[in-house]
This record gives sequence, C-alpha cells and structure tokens, in this order.
Amino acid sequence: MTKKITVALDAMGGDRAPEIVVEGAALARERHLGVHYLFFGIESKIKPLLEKHKELSKVSEIVHTDDVISADVRPSAALRTGRKSSMWLAVESVRDELAGGVVSAGNTGALMASSRYVLGMIPGIMRPAIASFLPTPNGECVMLDLGANAESAVEHLVQFAIMGDAFARTTLGLPEPKIGLLNIGTEETKGTESVRQAYAVLKKMSSNETDFPLNFHGFIEGNDIALGTTDIVVTDGFSGNVALKAIEGTSKLFSALLKQTVQHSIWAKIGFLLAKPAFDKLKERVDPRRYNGAVFLGINGSVVKSHGGTDAFGFSNAIGITADMIHNGFIDRVRDEIERISHLVFSKSV
Amino acid sequence: MTKKITVALDAMGGDRAPEIVVEGAALARERHLGVHYLFFGIESKIKPLLEKHKELSKVSEIVHTDDVISADVRPSAALRTGRKSSMWLAVESVRDELAGGVVSAGNTGALMASSRYVLGMIPGIMRPAIASFLPTPNGECVMLDLGANAESAVEHLVQFAIMGDAFARTTLGLPEPKIGLLNIGTEETKGTESVRQAYAVLKKMSSNETDFPLNFHGFIEGNDIALGTTDIVVTDGFSGNVALKAIEGTSKLFSALLKQTVQHSIWAKIGFLLAKPAFDKLKERVDPRRYNGAVFLGINGSVVKSHGGTDAFGFSNAIGITADMIHNGFIDRVRDEIERISHLVFSKSV
Repeated sequence: MTKKITVALDAMGGDRAPEIVVEGAALARERHLGVHYLFFGIESKIKPLLEKHKELSKVSEIVHTDDVISADVRPSAALRTGRKSSMWLAVESVRDELAGGVVSAGNTGALMASSRYVLGMIPGIMRPAIASFLPTPNGECVMLDLGANAESAVEHLVQFAIMGDAFARTTLGLPEPKIGLLNIGTEETKGTESVRQAYAVLKKMSSNETDFPLNFHGFIEGNDIALGTTDIVVTDGFSGNVALKAIEGTSKLFSALLKQTVQHSIWAKIGFLLAKPAFDKLKERVDPRRYNGAVFLGINGSVVKSHGGTDAFGFSNAIGITADMIHNGFIDRVRDEIERISHLVFSKSV
Repeated sequence: MTKKITVALDAMGGDRAPEIVVEGAALARERHLGVHYLFFGIESKIKPLLEKHKELSKVSEIVHTDDVISADVRPSAALRTGRKSSMWLAVESVRDELAGGVVSAGNTGALMASSRYVLGMIPGIMRPAIASFLPTPNGECVMLDLGANAESAVEHLVQFAIMGDAFARTTLGLPEPKIGLLNIGTEETKGTESVRQAYAVLKKMSSNETDFPLNFHGFIEGNDIALGTTDIVVTDGFSGNVALKAIEGTSKLFSALLKQTVQHSIWAKIGFLLAKPAFDKLKERVDPRRYNGAVFLGINGSVVKSHGGTDAFGFSNAIGITADMIHNGFIDRVRDEIERISHLVFSKSV
C-alpha cells in the first residue's frame, strides 16, 4: 500500500550539472525504492547520462527545456525571464501535482523566489525559513532560519518554531522534539526585544494550558548548536546564516590543521595510517555531504535546495530528505498544525 | 626609557579566585618584565598565595577589601551595592591612574556596568564593544562586538570598525589590518539595512579621498571568520556572540569526536601515541586559553575580561593583552583616531 512518490529534479542546477544530478538520483534510487524521478533540463545532455543507469531509467522521465537559470542571476530577474527554465518548470510540476517535491542545486535566491511565486505560502505562514540538519554528538539537530530573511519579528520566530517542530517530527521521527531559541545568554532578560517576546509566546505554548503543547526548552547559546542541547534551533535568518557558516568554517579549519598534524613527522604519518579506520569514521560522521539539503519551510510544497558544489552522494541526500517529506505528508501536517494553533500564535498577547 | 606599567587585578573574580589570579600573574611576570600588579581583594587569602612567588611579590601590592561581586548578580545591583567590591576598586584604580588597566575574571555584566560608570566612554564613542582574538590558519583575527549590545545601528558598526582597527594595529602590530563586515552574503544588496549602510560608510572611508583611509575588505560571511579572510571581523553583538559560541561549540564537538576516534581500536591508540607530538602541537594551536581575554573597547580605560573558568595560563594571557594595550597607549590612540575622523563618521551621509 505504498503511494507513488515522484521527485522533480532541476537537472541543470549546480556546479557540475547535470552529471551529479543524474548520479545522485542513481544513488538515491538504491536507497529509496518506489520513488520516481522527473528530470527537467536539456534532454540531449541528460539522456546519455541516464542511459548508464538502467534501474534509474525505468523510473525516470525527462522534460526537455533549453532554458537554464544561471548561478549569479538576481531573484527578480529570474522571476521575469526564467519562466521556461529547468528550475521553474520543476517547481511548477509540484504545483501541478506531477511531483510531490522538488530538488535543485541552483541559485538559492531564484529557487526561493520561484517557489514563493509558483507554490505560494502555506496558509497562515508569513515568511519562509530555510532549515537544515547539523551534526551533534548524539545525531543531528535542525536549525532555522538559515538566511531566507535578513530580519525576523517575534511572530516569524514563533512560526519558525512550529514549522521546525513539524519538520523534526516528520523527518527525524522524534515524538516531542526539544526546541531552543538562540540568544546571547540564557536568562529571560537577555537579548533583543523580538527574542524575549518570542520566548514568552513559546513558553506559553509549551504549558499544559494549550491544546498544542510544544516542548520548549528555552533560550540556548551558540555553543549549544553543535552540542545538541536541543533538537531544533530557532533563530532569525541573519544569525542563523552566520552561525551555520561559522560552524562550516571552523570544521574546515580543523580539517586543515588535522592534515598539517598528520604531515608533521614520519611518526605522525605512521600513527595516522594505523588509526586510519577510526579517522575514516570520524570523517564520515562530520561529512558535510551527509547534511546536504536545505528545506524551504513555509512554502506550500516540498522544495529542497542542494549545495551547488556537492557531489552525487551529497545530492542523493537532498533527494532523500525530499522523499521523506513527501512520504510523511509534511506539507499537510504543517498546514494542519498551523490551523490548529493559529489562535495561539496570533492572539492579542503577541 | 621604559615607562612603568601597572595592571590592576580583581583577585576575587572567577571560578577559582584568588588562586588562578595569583598564579596567572606569576606566569605573566615571567613573560612581561617591568609590569607591576595591584591585587584587589581579601588580603588574608591573597597574601599566602603571593608569598609563594618571590619575584612576583617584589612587584605586587595588595589592596584589601572584604566585598566581592558574585557571579550571578545583575549589573544594576552591582552598581548599587558593589562599590566597595574588589572589581569596583580595581576599576577605580584605573580612573585614579594607580593602574594603566584592569583584568577581571568576574561577572561580565557587572564589569561592563562598573567600567562604564567609573571610567566612562572614550569621547565620541557611543557604545562599548567586546573584542577578542580567534585562531585562523595564519594566526589570529579580532572579532567585535561579541555581546556588549543586543542590537547595533549603522553608526555603532562603523565605530566598531574604527576601534577594531586601532586595536589590531596596537595589539597585533599590523600596519593596515584588513576589515571585514559580517553579513549573510557578499553582494552589496544582501543583509539588513544597518549592514548595508555601514558598508557604504566604510567603503567611503577606505577610499583615498579621506584623510583616514581604512583597509576595508567589504562583506564577509560566517565561514570567513575561522578562515582568516580578514584581520578584523565587525558585527553586531547578537550575531557576534552567536558566532563566537558556535565556533567554541564546534571546536568542542571536534575534540570530543577526536577523543572517540582515538579510543576506537588498539591500532588507533598506538597510532595516536606515535602522532602525539603532532597532536600536542594541534592542541596548543587551538587552545582556547591562548585566546583568553576579551577587551571592552570604547571604555575610557583598558578593561579586559578573562573567562571565569580559565586557569593560570589563560589568565596570564588576559594580563598580557592588558599590558600590551597599556604599553602601546591604546586608549590615547583610539581617542586620537576618533577625534580625527569624527567628521566622517557623523557626517550627514550616514
């Protein structure tokens, strides 16, 4: 009784498209049986790549278009001139229910703009938020917003918490994900007016008085992200983007220093060879490709942005997230939850 | 022709005070000859510790007070009731020119409040900023504000850039430190209104038309902090604090995973033993104690906050930063630069 799941793929988005898109789908095909693929892009380029993968070909279809949105185009220009592009048509296929969700490794701003335009917002949601997984000692956490908005008011932060909650329930399978609100201290008096007010609203929503209790942990600080103090990290798009990239930069610095360390002496080299299986495990654990796939929450359809520079393995993970969202009826669940609690979020107390 | 430098120490601030304060000063004494110390706190506790260090004793004096500001007191309460505390008296000794600067590992909010109250701001500076060093592949960078302000307007960001510039020149000895403004993208159109306006002002100040050219690199992103793209990272206190702590959390996660890796197998353990000297070097390189000492820029006096949980080595580094600032006449230099450029920063174009 499995329903048919179709994922639309912008085959022309990303640094090494369409190669990594097809290769990524081939990897995803092995892990997610029963998923169908719609490739949008230049058929003469996609077809020969697809023919190398017999199993994938059986569940795939190509929708040809010559148009491609370039990596550096402004969102407004994409809206005006990109209507026949692989990205736009892939997003439209979700609106037209030909696909349950879409993945693109192309221009983030253009993908956000076309998604908002074509699919609209989930009723009641004011602002989209970009969400992604991050590694923690015990697994992973979800952080949002990662940069869809430069500024976020109190009602946006509260909605991010609700969307993050629905997202963690559906994709991580957590029954009561713990929600943290990012701040510069954990006392109620710390931070900006918006975070303090959002704290008050979320605190109220986490009490038993409401019919939609959230598991709200309270304020957390930057170091809590990587420590996995909460399952969900809620923040405005500015500090969320800064924090995400600060974490990425630190990981890179560490990897570079680790490499230097290994090259330090002949003993270090031998030592590293002996410990290689252990280091491979460490590498796998923090592999950024494993966390590839940022979700545009709030959009009325499942839209996932893959990193433009990822490889087939990374792209297959972005497909996996999309397939999970479709499989678990994510959009319907968020829609229901928003409807159920709208009186709480938009009450006069805010 | 070395001038006498005196550093005031809040001997009672921090988790293991006064032990680490005295031990830290003893270490600093070895590295910074010619520096004198004023210990503020409970004499009966400080004296026996000081007697263990003959050389340090020769250049030290104890100013007794029974009063101590606790770690959890509110800044406002510290202002009302802390006037006879070790922290307050240490700060006053800078105002009274008994010391050139002060170090405390105590309550951050109380130290900021008492510093502003007792020493005031450098004329023309609107807001204090907390600045600290961070490791990069080629050395270190300075980041500010790290949380003195929850929100920062355009003129504050511009002033942070100027103070950071003066600070990097004096403490890192860089002739033309490169300044980056933290944002969620590098295009001029990205980010909040404040960062975009601050960008325009700094761009103008970095042109040859002005008599005070800054080496302004432009916008940078979170990953640029650890990569050392610029010598100075300017940001508002909210995202600065979040970024700093996100970096700390990631470092801790990495260390924990590295430890797990080493315990993975007997071969990994042997391998690690062989590579130990190399790993020790790596550890030293990213040792947070090396970067201990956050400076309260904008305060009309050199005030340095040590981490409350640091050890003697960490505390000695905070003393070192203070001694450098005094030695290089940091406060006078910032005062001069602010005066020189005030017409640029506060012109109508802002």
